[in-house]
Amino acid sequence: MILSWKEISQMVEKEIHNTNFKGQPSELYDPISYILQLGGKRIRPTLCLLSAQMFKGDFKGAMDLAMGIEIFHNFSLVHDDIMDEAPLRRGEKTIHEKWNRDIAILSGDVMFVKAYQQLCKVDTPYLKEILDLFNTTAIEVCEGQQFDMNYESEDEINLSQYERMIELKTAVLLACSLKLGAIYSGASKEDSEAIYEFGRCIGIAFQIQDDYLDAYANPKEFGKKVGGDILNNKKTFLMISALEKANSIQKQNLENLKNTAINADQKIKDTLAIFNELNIADSTKKRMEYYFDKALNEMNSINIPDQRKEPLLSLAKSLMHRKT
Amino acid sequence: MILSWKEISQMVEKEIHNTNFKGQPSELYDPISYILQLGGKRIRPTLCLLSAQMFKGDFKGAMDLAMGIEIFHNFSLVHDDIMDEAPLRRGEKTIHEKWNRDIAILSGDVMFVKAYQQLCKVDTPYLKEILDLFNTTAIEVCEGQQFDMNYESEDEINLSQYERMIELKTAVLLACSLKLGAIYSGASKEDSEAIYEFGRCIGIAFQIQDDYLDAYANPKEFGKKVGGDILNNKKTFLMISALEKANSIQKQNLENLKNTAINADQKIKDTLAIFNELNIADSTKKRMEYYFDKALNEMNSINIPDQRKEPLLSLAKSLMHRKT
Repeated sequence: MILSWKEISQMVEKEIHNTNFKGQPSELYDPISYILQLGGKRIRPTLCLLSAQMFKGDFKGAMDLAMGIEIFHNFSLVHDDIMDEAPLRRGEKTIHEKWNRDIAILSGDVMFVKAYQQLCKVDTPYLKEILDLFNTTAIEVCEGQQFDMNYESEDEINLSQYERMIELKTAVLLACSLKLGAIYSGASKEDSEAIYEFGRCIGIAFQIQDDYLDAYANPKEFGKKVGGDILNNKKTFLMISALEKANSIQKQNLENLKNTAINADQKIKDTLAIFNELNIADSTKKRMEYYFDKALNEMNSINIPDQRKEPLLSLAKSLMHRKT
Repeated sequence: MILSWKEISQMVEKEIHNTNFKGQPSELYDPISYILQLGGKRIRPTLCLLSAQMFKGDFKGAMDLAMGIEIFHNFSLVHDDIMDEAPLRRGEKTIHEKWNRDIAILSGDVMFVKAYQQLCKVDTPYLKEILDLFNTTAIEVCEGQQFDMNYESEDEINLSQYERMIELKTAVLLACSLKLGAIYSGASKEDSEAIYEFGRCIGIAFQIQDDYLDAYANPKEFGKKVGGDILNNKKTFLMISALEKANSIQKQNLENLKNTAINADQKIKDTLAIFNELNIADSTKKRMEYYFDKALNEMNSINIPDQRKEPLLSLAKSLMHRKT
């Protein structure tokens, strides 16, 4: 029986709920239970299981793999939150806020090992392949975070640097989750590579969409204030595109809007006006579509009945708010 | 040909010197080269290779294992130094001092993955066994660090808690280094366990000796000021023993010495006087000898020619400043 992505995602949630992360000293283990129970969409483990289901017909035995990925993802959030000095994560206090910095560093480190322990639990002849991919990906995720921090203080970032950063920081872990499910299922090298590319492209498209929605979402449907990135002077795909396309006057105006203390709504409105002059919404949507189409092409190259691909494609479309 | 521990230690140093840790972004990789080139005794990788040499006759192919252990050890130093707010490591600036906290966290994380990459490079049928032991040990090292931080602010620590803490924080990694060399060499389960116990006992003895020397070293031979731990009110094996043995007056005197602002040399002298009343030097030496003898017994249980054991025993004796 082929399960939908929602059913699989619920199974992941249940597995996390039933896993015991307790241990001594409790200062080290309580934060692990805390962060893992905060919820979230569980996209990465769900992708891993969907991929195993697609290639193997079921995902029996791949749950440890999926859990390893989710624990790693949460480890990276814990350490990133320290660096970003973020007070909240999913509406609740971050670990360094609720406990302290040292506990956040060290319980993060333990989570990292726990992720490896989950991967090593998997009964598979492909342990080395699984770990090689996971190691490479883990390093790339750290590189992405460092590039992100570097870019905050750099003046001129171009779009290709930005895309590479979001690829490293986010897309490669989605891709890795899918490929791990494929390797586990004994998929061919070509198919494993195709599903990796599918995930990488969906990941980049998703991150670009994240930037797009911040400026152009329907305020009634969007969970937070539209224009938050503009207010915070964030270097988004939109802003970097705009600065690349702008003439000298538009560029000066964008710089002035960044540096002048003006009314929040006015700042958003004036910035969006320049974005509109430069057709930023269109060019951003085109880039999202470019990556989404690339992802679909990769999926088409895999010779497996459509019925088995459907749950994974359905999740990808849902992430991209698409019906087709 | 059987090599001495000094020869093997030099080979480790050379291997580290010849390894390229470069990468992009450089903020992430420069600190890794920096910390690994700071030197140190390379005891852990040397133990791993000595163990392989003992069980297998040579240590060919175990260098990646040894490097993985050394990189992990340095990762733990980088994160510990942040938590301890240590300005110096081996006389040079720590990473969070030379760069900053975020870079120390993140380059530490990358080192952690690099350690796993080294382990995964090893050509061995025992990859899963190697990783299972390494994972368990890595978590124990984090637990030891957390206990150490907890104990700083706790009033009453007893000797058994203290020994457990140094066991986790230091001894298990020495034990793991040796056992990894044994597993890699295809040693029996009994022999692998015996060499682990050997390392664990040597590790605990070594840490107790560290505390002992701080108070009782020959000032001419000791690299730093004798009595530093007493001055810093550190909860050492000596101080915890003293507080356990002291009568109420001696206990009050020790507490007063801790809390009163007096001349440094006087504080050391008065504290040592109470230690001497309580025979702390003797009881501490006895505990070191207990663990050292236990280690030797474990080694004796391993059925291998003495000649092959000699380099490892020689290193253990050198660590304990012993001729026999």
